Amino acid sequence: MSQTPDSAVRTYIDEHRAAFLDDLAEWLRIPSVSAQPQHAPDVRRSADWLAGKLKETGFPTTEVWQTPGAPAVYAEWPSDDPTAPTILVYGHHDVQPAAREDGWDSDPFEPAVRENRLYARGAADDKGQVFFHTLGVRAHLAATGRTTPAVTLKLLIEGEEESGSPYFRALVEEHADRLGADAVIVSDTGMWSEDTPTVCTGMRGLAECEIRLHGPDQDIHSGSFGGAVPNPATAAARLVAALHDDHARVTIPGFYDGVVDLTDRERALFAELPFDEQRWLRTAKSHATHGETGYTTLERIWARPTAEVNGIGGGYQGAGTKTIIPSTAMVKLSFRLVAGQDPDHIERAVRTWAADHTPDGIRHEITFSAATRPCLTPLDHPALQSVVRAMSRAFGKPVLHTREGGSGPAADLQDVLGAPILFLGISVPSDGWHAPNEKVELDLLLKGAETAAHLWGDLAEHWRHAP
Amino acid sequence: MSQTPDSAVRTYIDEHRAAFLDDLAEWLRIPSVSAQPQHAPDVRRSADWLAGKLKETGFPTTEVWQTPGAPAVYAEWPSDDPTAPTILVYGHHDVQPAAREDGWDSDPFEPAVRENRLYARGAADDKGQVFFHTLGVRAHLAATGRTTPAVTLKLLIEGEEESGSPYFRALVEEHADRLGADAVIVSDTGMWSEDTPTVCTGMRGLAECEIRLHGPDQDIHSGSFGGAVPNPATAAARLVAALHDDHARVTIPGFYDGVVDLTDRERALFAELPFDEQRWLRTAKSHATHGETGYTTLERIWARPTAEVNGIGGGYQGAGTKTIIPSTAMVKLSFRLVAGQDPDHIERAVRTWAADHTPDGIRHEITFSAATRPCLTPLDHPALQSVVRAMSRAFGKPVLHTREGGSGPAADLQDVLGAPILFLGISVPSDGWHAPNEKVELDLLLKGAETAAHLWGDLAEHWRHAP
Repeated sequence: MSQTPDSAVRTYIDEHRAAFLDDLAEWLRIPSVSAQPQHAPDVRRSADWLAGKLKETGFPTTEVWQTPGAPAVYAEWPSDDPTAPTILVYGHHDVQPAAREDGWDSDPFEPAVRENRLYARGAADDKGQVFFHTLGVRAHLAATGRTTPAVTLKLLIEGEEESGSPYFRALVEEHADRLGADAVIVSDTGMWSEDTPTVCTGMRGLAECEIRLHGPDQDIHSGSFGGAVPNPATAAARLVAALHDDHARVTIPGFYDGVVDLTDRERALFAELPFDEQRWLRTAKSHATHGETGYTTLERIWARPTAEVNGIGGGYQGAGTKTIIPSTAMVKLSFRLVAGQDPDHIERAVRTWAADHTPDGIRHEITFSAATRPCLTPLDHPALQSVVRAMSRAFGKPVLHTREGGSGPAADLQDVLGAPILFLGISVPSDGWHAPNEKVELDLLLKGAETAAHLWGDLAEHWRHAP
Repeated sequence: MSQTPDSAVRTYIDEHRAAFLDDLAEWLRIPSVSAQPQHAPDVRRSADWLAGKLKETGFPTTEVWQTPGAPAVYAEWPSDDPTAPTILVYGHHDVQPAAREDGWDSDPFEPAVRENRLYARGAADDKGQVFFHTLGVRAHLAATGRTTPAVTLKLLIEGEEESGSPYFRALVEEHADRLGADAVIVSDTGMWSEDTPTVCTGMRGLAECEIRLHGPDQDIHSGSFGGAVPNPATAAARLVAALHDDHARVTIPGFYDGVVDLTDRERALFAELPFDEQRWLRTAKSHATHGETGYTTLERIWARPTAEVNGIGGGYQGAGTKTIIPSTAMVKLSFRLVAGQDPDHIERAVRTWAADHTPDGIRHEITFSAATRPCLTPLDHPALQSVVRAMSRAFGKPVLHTREGGSGPAADLQDVLGAPILFLGISVPSDGWHAPNEKVELDLLLKGAETAAHLWGDLAEHWRHAP
């Protein structure tokens, strides 16, 4: 199998750019806001629209999959090469809420092009990045003269990512047979900047819990009893304070068990990124960096596990004063996990630690939410190398690496399907995900299509699937 | 001057018991709830009623003093003995809110006698304890044949104690000349139990502050930034956790400066009280004791300074999870102070400590509320000994000692007037202050009058004022 000629791909994309953008604009006009019940028909319409467009693109199988929440779209295009790998593309067709009065310069659901940028809710997150795959696969076929893709291509485009994907895992489990793939391509992330194409290699996982601490059976007078009984707000505070040592390392015994350390090569590649800490602090709206000793800021957010308190509360929080020892207090903790950490092990470790740190006379209750596993694809994985080559050809420059500090439902795909996760995203930090005036850079959007057009051939050539 | 014959006092009180209780019931029918604006006319009516009753009792001077809040009642009855000490009695005529549906067995403002107890809002806190002084002074005169009290008697009965006495200090400062006294008798406390008469010797002071901690300029994503910037909720928790060492001693440098230690005699007297820790825990609705190493529970709540967190809050406190690093967090701290501690010094110490414990990248703001000074009268103070003798004669048994863990506006009297504070209270823990079915034990109420009847002569005899 020969490499797709780069110029043929580019020519196809240039010739079909206008129609592609018209189609995308049509989709963006559907306000598929999954979090707002009044938009449920729009989410449904968005799924139907996408299924129709994928059929038009050439996918022989397109289906809308119902869930107890919003519908997902599934499409499949088998390769005629029986030894080709199977690739599952993940994205989502629902969008964040948006209203003109939030500060948009134009209607969020009436796409507008200004200075080569397409402004609309969903332009980058995630309709634009799903949709470049339709152009990419057509360009791949046109440039190679193939009638089916060089890999068997599956798409799973969910409809409730912006609502926390409550039914996603169950959907994947239900359809695990049909979703089976050698690798998953997630097109719901971004790259470092307009000038620095990057491939993300992993995502942190997430475990979350709430710990409620019960002291006196009701609020009691701090004059009458203060200094002589345990205070649950103090216990809550001491629990949070005990989370980290002086090196900002998490102190929970067993927390770091199994953590896959950064390799020297990955640290070196991170260090090549043009990172400006002052500028990053402005993005973080923060006034200092603070984190685990021995790691840079990027290493801390991408490759190190963390414990953060997301909420703490207890006693009187209104105006003025109230001289009580509160009856209860609570903390909400979240733990970002990295490759090698197991959420179940973390839950057990946190439970033991919390019990050990609850003083006499205080009762604690701890509740964990559903966890998300971390994912990481090693730099030397052949499929990852294909993504890097395809992106490098499209952008005409070397590709560096990032990771994602957040956590996403794509990790469920890795978990259920047992396939490695690869990331192909062309969004940039200025795209304003979830914010007013969300946009996508048109040049980058087309580079996404170009990358996808190169990727299928490269994967088929370098990562042949044993039949 | 001879001691008042005990039997003459008792006879007078027995003969006037019915009329005294009728009068008290009339006063208790006035719902003088200072916290509820709709009751402002009732508070005013209560003040007028008391002023009229004090005139009837014989006080040549009775006045209603306006404040920007609720009115206070002032009365004065000079002794004809120019060398007699001047005593100022403090109490309050306003009451806590009460409604039948809160769980009262009878109308809170329609006094009812059941099993020798008088049930009504204010029966113990504080109308009953103010009113026994009218019977006490008449019994004193009747038993001694005097036409004026053996001491110059002043009464200041405020009208907004249950609303936090916002204008009390200003009122005392405004009238400091007229309020001048050698000692202040506070009749707004209680004694150990029905069987164990006690005299309280001091009250803790109170300093309160709120510390607000500011991190990121807005809530930020814990996936994107977690582990790399300081979290103000963590800072708040660490501040609270740093308040105490492993011995539950307050770690703030300078906090214990000047603290008057318990004497061996006072510790021994506390130890004589029939204290049942399990029963006390039930009252505290708590499940363990916890406090400063080396002190008993009673010593901890009465005679040791404390730091308690009354409220803590930051980040997301609703249902479920929210993966944020919060922008702000806050803690409300209160410090109970004991004799020798200066609230201004404490404020400076806390400010320095908070600044030292706020990490880089977090900004803190600290606000102190008006403080209350501690007060303590040494066991060997002659006026205190008079109170003990008078109470011992009335109850016919030895009197032990307590202190009060809470803090009250009476401390302002000590502060402005420079007079020692003595406590004469006959309420017992079961009286249900601020609760439904507040009551006063009728026998104890009359013992209060009897104690007061003995006290004025004893004070005049043993604590002569240099003219």
